[in-house]
Order: sequence, then C-alpha cells, then structure tokens
Amino acid sequence: MKVIELEKKVLKRNDEIAEEIRELYKQKGIFTINLVSSPGAGKTSILENICQRLESKVNIGIIVGDVETENDAKRLSKFNVQTVQIITNGACHLDAKMVKNAMEKIDLDKLDILFIENVGNLVCPTNYDLGEEMRIVIVSTTEGDDKPLKYPPMFHSADVAVINKIDLLPNLPSNIDEMKKNLLKIKPGLKILETSAYKGTGIDALCDLLLLKKK
Amino acid sequence: MKVIELEKKVLKRNDEIAEEIRELYKQKGIFTINLVSSPGAGKTSILENICQRLESKVNIGIIVGDVETENDAKRLSKFNVQTVQIITNGACHLDAKMVKNAMEKIDLDKLDILFIENVGNLVCPTNYDLGEEMRIVIVSTTEGDDKPLKYPPMFHSADVAVINKIDLLPNLPSNIDEMKKNLLKIKPGLKILETSAYKGTGIDALCDLLLLKKK
Repeated sequence: MKVIELEKKVLKRNDEIAEEIRELYKQKGIFTINLVSSPGAGKTSILENICQRLESKVNIGIIVGDVETENDAKRLSKFNVQTVQIITNGACHLDAKMVKNAMEKIDLDKLDILFIENVGNLVCPTNYDLGEEMRIVIVSTTEGDDKPLKYPPMFHSADVAVINKIDLLPNLPSNIDEMKKNLLKIKPGLKILETSAYKGTGIDALCDLLLLKKK
Repeated sequence: MKVIELEKKVLKRNDEIAEEIRELYKQKGIFTINLVSSPGAGKTSILENICQRLESKVNIGIIVGDVETENDAKRLSKFNVQTVQIITNGACHLDAKMVKNAMEKIDLDKLDILFIENVGNLVCPTNYDLGEEMRIVIVSTTEGDDKPLKYPPMFHSADVAVINKIDLLPNLPSNIDEMKKNLLKIKPGLKILETSAYKGTGIDALCDLLLLKKK
C-alpha cells in the first residue's frame, strides 16, 4: 500500500515537471518525440537514419538515456546535431526531471526537433510523461508478433508504432500482418510504419511524418 | 531518499522470502532456474525446445511471468509439464512472493526442475532473487552485440548467458565474437552457450548443462 502511494506521489511530481517542460517546448516552437522500445529494437539506428536525412534541413537535438555507457550519444555525435547523454545508473526509465536537467545543456534557440531516446524497456517508461508531443514505440519483427498483446500499456500509450527490422521477415516465424492486427487491437487507429534501419527502408516516410507533425 | 529507503526495505523482504523458497527447493531436491531477457529474446521458444527434449526424462515445472496474457503458459501446456501463469498486472518483474504463491499450485513432490520465466526486461528483474539456483540471461543476436555493456547489472548477475537467434547472424550487422567479448568483460568466466530456438540448434548442449547441474 505504501509503495503504491509513493508511486502515485512520484508520478504526480513527474507530471508537474513534464507540464513545465511541455510549456517551454511550446514557447520555443520545439517538436519533441519520446522514443521507447525493448533493448536492441533499433532506437539509435533509426535516429542515425533520421539524422542523415534531416540534419541539413532542421535543427535536431537528441537526449539519450542509458543505464550505462555513452555509446549511443557517441554514435549520434557524428551528425550535425546537439546530443546529451543521460546515464541513469541503474534506473529503468527516464523521468521528466532528468530530461529537464539535460535540456540545460542544449541551446533551445537552435532547436526544431528534440528526440528523447528512452532506456530500452517495454514496461517502466510507460507512465513517465517527458513532456513530449509524440510518443513513438519501436518494435522489431524479431521480437515476435505477439508483443503488443503482452505489453499493452506501452503500446496503448504510443501515438505511432514503428515496426523495425522488416528486412529479416523472410527468415522469421513472425507474421507482420498479425503484428499490425495486434497493435490495432491494443490501440485502434494507431499510426503504423514499417522500417529497416539496417537497410534504410521506410525511413523517408518516417521523416515525412515528423516534418508534417512539426508544422 | 524516501524512495531509496523503501526500495531497500522491499528488497530485504524479497530476499527473506527468496531464502525461504530456496530452502524448500533444497529439501525437495528441485533444481530451479530464473530465465531473464529482453522482450522477445526467446525465453518461451527455448523452453519449448527444452520441454520437447526433457519432458520424458525429468519432471518439469514452469512458472511464467507476464505483464498481460496467458499466451506463454498456453504455448507450454502442450508438453507433459506443470505450468502456472503469473500475470503481474503492469509490474515489470517477478518477485519472490509471487513465485511463492505460484508454487502452491505446483505438486512439488513431482518436480525435478523448475523454470521461472521472468517478465521481459533487462533492468528491473536484476535485484529480485527468486530463490533460484541458476540465473540464465538470454540475449538475441538481433539486439546488437553491445547489450551486455549497456545493461551490465543483469548480465553480471547471471550464471549462464545464452546467445539466441544465431541462425540470423548472416543477415545482421552484429558480431557474435564481439558480443562474447562484451559478456566476458562484464562477467569474466561467464558460461556462454549459442542457440537458435527457431532451428533447434544448440539446445542439446543447454539441456546437458541443466542435467549436469541438477545432479
């Protein structure tokens, strides 16, 4: 009981900070995206693909959350983007306060789109609003087509689902139509895109969606 | 500060129950394994393969933890094994109390090996001892060879690492030697096995290990 009460309090405080950040994003005209997925579903690879296509068109910032290592921020720093790494030291998700602190290291006046790459986890980041305007959940074909049914809160909280690693479909028992059906069962009307970050497939459509929503 | 204190208290209580369970397993001569991984790394598929090979040789029990659905228990119930599904209702890991409750539904006198399939999550299950004798972490080749470095506590807590989905290696940018190197960097001496649950590769060696450790 005590745990639940404390959790509620923590979430309430998180929501307050998230609202503060959202207000700031709005004032500055920054479009923000919270990227969530299992470990290894392809968040960083998709960001690399996006940066390659959009770095010359819009000012991009990326806040990267990881339990350990700065590897992801290093991978992204080769692009013309502002990156900040958050090391959570064991914490299983980002929260609004971590993002607020990270934002201090970004020049917000030189920013059009801010990506927040969450910790790889299909459960814990669900209830933590980071003040984002769009939440994108990435699920890879290799995880199996039943994942939306097994982790429904996360998929239900998303605005867009990206099915990544479609290049591997011929070698897998997974069925992409079944995965789409399961996604829509959890969230009717959910926008679904298909990509292969490894082969660069489907990234243009994702970039078009981001630029469209940004306006 | 309050959160950390409460967490310590919760973990202390968990450890106490885990010790109770461990004592009971020992009395009954049951060998127990806690299976942890990211969502979709292949825990259930590997268990299907193990059941197929060992169901006629030893008495198997499986406790399956999921955020939602009884799909995994259903997949495993086609074998001659005792299965119990735990639905965590949003919780991101199993704890010793959930396992203790589930054990009441199993005939422990007809049990040689008990598998506990944890919730798919590379962070939260780490500190929750379930009274197991062996912890096996499954990591799939598709998740990328850097995962041990990015989620070190979980890999450090494991006794055995199973690299699954090796059949996909020719189609991936991941390097299995690099993954092994990273696993051993986090835990020197870690026992590493390679499998493809989809193709049935490497499962015999895993079964041999389990039967050897059981004795």
